[in-house]
Amino acid sequence: MEAIFVYTTFPDWESARKVVRELLERKLVVCANMREHEAMYWWEGKIEEGREIGVILKTEVSKWKDLREALKELHPYTVPIIARIDLDKLNREYSEWMAKVLFG
Amino acid sequence: MEAIFVYTTFPDWESARKVVRELLERKLVVCANMREHEAMYWWEGKIEEGREIGVILKTEVSKWKDLREALKELHPYTVPIIARIDLDKLNREYSEWMAKVLFG
Amino acid sequence: MEAIFVYTTFPDWESARKVVRELLERKLVVCANMREHEAMYWWEGKIEEGREIGVILKTEVSKWKDLREALKELHPYTVPIIARIDLDKLNREYSEWMAKVLFG
Repeated sequence: MEAIFVYTTFPDWESARKVVRELLERKLVVCANMREHEAMYWWEGKIEEGREIGVILKTEVSKWKDLREALKELHPYTVPIIARIDLDKLNREYSEWMAKVLFG
Repeated sequence: MEAIFVYTTFPDWESARKVVRELLERKLVVCANMREHEAMYWWEGKIEEGREIGVILKTEVSKWKDLREALKELHPYTVPIIARIDLDKLNREYSEWMAKVLFG
Repeated sequence: MEAIFVYTTFPDWESARKVVRELLERKLVVCANMREHEAMYWWEGKIEEGREIGVILKTEVSKWKDLREALKELHPYTVPIIARIDLDKLNREYSEWMAKVLFG
């Protein structure tokens, strides 16, 4: 079990919850943590600001490609961020629970 | 000095603050950043939702095993997440301050 | 393109927004995600608490040294945290957009 976090952002709570539920139903992730933030970024030559929902998705590395493709398919943004961070260590209890949910 | 972030989640502010204070007093971490999020996850065959407190703990890698065991001992969840992310770089000023707090 | 996240914290929204805008104008980062948290930490022999703004900065690894130095120059804290986490994977669309913003 190699566990990963995948970070992505949504324009609002409605789209965040809808996409996360779909990822859970497809067993591509075991859990998501979602909270609002303020974003500042370059867009078409200007610095823009806005509220977003930032989401940490928790899963196993073998789900990565399917998860990335599902996010591209479901995501409301043209250019979403889909950033993978591999965990260096994870406690055995959570790791075993994750395996049971994802692989039955 | 190899610095690490350890991510965990609590059911409420009271338990988060209580456990974090204990970890600080035992000099297992130098700092914690805590904020609320909405969690969606599989639990006993159903997709559940709820508010949680997500916590980033900052420490040095030699504290990892003691920190993990302390979290298991103190944590209100049966299956908490205790996820370690090793920092790739950290500015020298913060690294030196961290060493002074943890190792005197 | 090797993408990185850099995590730092500010004492208030005003300083966070001001410094982030400057980093964007200098093309040291493409995007920042900012949200409030509660911090607990050791400071001069005591455990302190307070509200802060935690910021994830998104950029390319070749910007790291300039970004770190700019943060030291602009940061209101004497000892800020400037923590770099290298992404293990990033979707091609975001990576290409990031390169276009940073390198024209």
